[in-house]
Amino acid sequence: MTYSRHNLADTIVALATPPGVGAIGIIRLSGSEAIGIVQKVFGGKDLTQQDSHTLHFGTIIGEDGKILDEVLVSLFKAPHSYTGENVAEVSCHGSPFILRQVLELFIEKGARLAQPGEFTLRAFLNGKMDLSQAEAVADLITSTSESAHSVAMRQMRGGFSHEIKKLREDLINFASLIELELDFAEEDVEFANREQLKLTVAKIQSFIHSLIRSFRLGNVLKTGVPTVIAGRPNAGKSTLLNALLNEERAIVSHIAGTTRDTIEEILNINGVEFRLIDTAGIREAQDQIEAIGVEKTMEKVRQATLLVYVFDVVETKIDEVLADVKNLQSENTQLLVVCNKMDNLPSYKPEWLLHPADPAIPDFFFANRSQLAVGSWQLAVGQQQVITLSAKNGMNIPFLKEKLYDLAISEKVNLESPIVTNARHYEALQKASESLDDVQRGLDDGVTSDFVAMDIRRALAYLGEILGEMSTEDLLSNIFSRFCIGK
Amino acid sequence: MTYSRHNLADTIVALATPPGVGAIGIIRLSGSEAIGIVQKVFGGKDLTQQDSHTLHFGTIIGEDGKILDEVLVSLFKAPHSYTGENVAEVSCHGSPFILRQVLELFIEKGARLAQPGEFTLRAFLNGKMDLSQAEAVADLITSTSESAHSVAMRQMRGGFSHEIKKLREDLINFASLIELELDFAEEDVEFANREQLKLTVAKIQSFIHSLIRSFRLGNVLKTGVPTVIAGRPNAGKSTLLNALLNEERAIVSHIAGTTRDTIEEILNINGVEFRLIDTAGIREAQDQIEAIGVEKTMEKVRQATLLVYVFDVVETKIDEVLADVKNLQSENTQLLVVCNKMDNLPSYKPEWLLHPADPAIPDFFFANRSQLAVGSWQLAVGQQQVITLSAKNGMNIPFLKEKLYDLAISEKVNLESPIVTNARHYEALQKASESLDDVQRGLDDGVTSDFVAMDIRRALAYLGEILGEMSTEDLLSNIFSRFCIGK
Repeated sequence: MTYSRHNLADTIVALATPPGVGAIGIIRLSGSEAIGIVQKVFGGKDLTQQDSHTLHFGTIIGEDGKILDEVLVSLFKAPHSYTGENVAEVSCHGSPFILRQVLELFIEKGARLAQPGEFTLRAFLNGKMDLSQAEAVADLITSTSESAHSVAMRQMRGGFSHEIKKLREDLINFASLIELELDFAEEDVEFANREQLKLTVAKIQSFIHSLIRSFRLGNVLKTGVPTVIAGRPNAGKSTLLNALLNEERAIVSHIAGTTRDTIEEILNINGVEFRLIDTAGIREAQDQIEAIGVEKTMEKVRQATLLVYVFDVVETKIDEVLADVKNLQSENTQLLVVCNKMDNLPSYKPEWLLHPADPAIPDFFFANRSQLAVGSWQLAVGQQQVITLSAKNGMNIPFLKEKLYDLAISEKVNLESPIVTNARHYEALQKASESLDDVQRGLDDGVTSDFVAMDIRRALAYLGEILGEMSTEDLLSNIFSRFCIGK
Repeated sequence: MTYSRHNLADTIVALATPPGVGAIGIIRLSGSEAIGIVQKVFGGKDLTQQDSHTLHFGTIIGEDGKILDEVLVSLFKAPHSYTGENVAEVSCHGSPFILRQVLELFIEKGARLAQPGEFTLRAFLNGKMDLSQAEAVADLITSTSESAHSVAMRQMRGGFSHEIKKLREDLINFASLIELELDFAEEDVEFANREQLKLTVAKIQSFIHSLIRSFRLGNVLKTGVPTVIAGRPNAGKSTLLNALLNEERAIVSHIAGTTRDTIEEILNINGVEFRLIDTAGIREAQDQIEAIGVEKTMEKVRQATLLVYVFDVVETKIDEVLADVKNLQSENTQLLVVCNKMDNLPSYKPEWLLHPADPAIPDFFFANRSQLAVGSWQLAVGQQQVITLSAKNGMNIPFLKEKLYDLAISEKVNLESPIVTNARHYEALQKASESLDDVQRGLDDGVTSDFVAMDIRRALAYLGEILGEMSTEDLLSNIFSRFCIGK
């Protein structure tokens, strides 16, 4: 552990609430002088004489003797605080002007402006949480869906840390015994039972593998599923987007895309977020500028996890559909073909979709028309399943949502089992697993104890990285710089 | 007092911190059930058994038994709280997702979403503050300059309420005595000493008049000074704007104007805010669209308190300057004429501005050249003072700032004396003053007691309006609807 230890002597300060105007804004201080610094400018009782976990009304008095604000101060005494240090939270009126003045005053009186994540870093360094728990704090704050929240919360409260810690201890025992053998190399003794070691390694591997497998799901839960809606002009892409978002409108958030041409909207299906990307339309480029637009669309398509291709049941020719589908198919993207505007078919009736065997539907949609049962509206274009719907009328939209969810969460979700959401953990687990493979191989081949010990130590180091038991200044900087200031 | 009294039985809840992602987000509840409602979903000790002004760590547990967040709950028991009711503040992780879930949970458990300003309204209704103090809370939160903050803070902590309350009591005494006379009308007695009443009325009038006079300044301090920069194209308007803002850049905020054509920037001079409005330029309209732009500029000019007219010392002809100045002069606007680009004069040297008597300056700038002293750079165009400067080099910009400040704050500012910032108070004071004029006149003319009593009651009603001692539901709605939710 080398992370800026010398800075830990400082008392840090930051705005802890989001910037902007509100009823309340909170300035948080942590460090041995936290309470003393507030006391220097506090009009009210002597804060240094008060109990932990108490609240005190008073005023903050500026350098010129003028009252800056009427505040409530919360006191937390070490080690019974978030950071494990003395903490004071000053609840001011939520005016950016006041908050800036008060913040500057505390700095004037000896506090230092906190780095991003420095409060949580201190909580980690003071043993209030391990590194994976600290990372979960940032995930928790930025989580925007139930599943992301759920996974982050479990990780913050311990998550798979406990299991890893336990398995790691078993492994440390073996490593110690094997290293002891090295001291007695001349005498050819075996302190560590090789068969038991093999069993332990297998047990750890099995757990690590399940964690590694959970990462794809974890990543989906945490960051959402990039889902592109593509199709020729007038296929009804925007109508479909709106139909999907319709019920969710109240909780939908808008995110400006990376380019002005694509807008992301969040669709929440059963607690999983789909980041819907409406594209400019795959059309024949009319000019240079439009060609750039189409290229951007194709880029989005290539980055998508899910691709919804929409076509117009009346206007689009089957050959065009087949050509587009062939064109869009790619290894990393799952494709859903949607046949839109069913309401435009001459014989369309609202109850029609329950009877897809209606002769009015063009033959080319059917792989084998005779196999269709009433109630089934999955048709086939070439080898590709097709979902028929009417975005305008909202028909079959719930079915499309189910389908999207099934494709994203291919395995049965069990949010109660440990799930890895963090790419750093995923990489560390993969490397730990490789090292344990080496251990296993070494044991099978009967290599000498020093090599086995080395591989075990390597596995231990990678597992330790997840918990932060071995961490470099770089790693910590990297992790905590992603936090917001004040956390 | 008729304001929705029946609602006061509810326990209200709202997000108290600004929306967005942050380290901490606070949900505030107020009402008899505030602590009980939190307790229903709290994992931790029994909050209902804890003391006021204490903090408690625990979890918030959702309907499905899952942990929504780890929180700190602050407890305040009636009457020792902001609202005077039981208050609980739940400090959550600053995730909009979590905050929404927790807020919904409290509503599920019996709280009602608060109306804007309803916490402060309750504080007012429960006698924790008078109406003018409550209004100052909103002013305090939105104050963005030292002077606005200072005035709002003083008003929140009592301000001129105390004096008004005191003077009002004197007046009430007289009103009662005079009304007593009415009961003995047959007997022609005088309980109220007319001479003393005259003295009291004069004393109150003098105080009210000083308050009324302070309103112009108060309004400037509170809302800033709308300042338009106008001039022909290429006169250097934007350069001047940037030169003025340059030193202030770090704390400058950008406000999107009401139209896309005008942008407001805030310039802070000695704690007073100038809302600088750069205009599209007063030019000869080339087409219909540009004509609309010019019309918008002229509208801004008419609304401005200060108007800075800039011209190019080399390119602009004196006749054009005189025509523009004549055109722009108006009753409500104070005009400053700025002669820009002095650095473009053939003989320009950096130290040149110290020698305005330099023969290189065209004669037409001088009212009387011979009267100019070295060090004076105020020249004259017609009757209008002219400030010569170079926006590009920043020369004489500090002098322009002083000039702007002097024009805005025409009287000597004494922030320690009572200042009225609120238009509602201003109007009530004017009407109270008129009523007192009637009292005075009635006393002088020896009108009957019933008329004098009526006029005194009218004055009392207006003064009472300021404190909220007589307030209608409409008035309260109007005042508190301007608050943010959660305050």
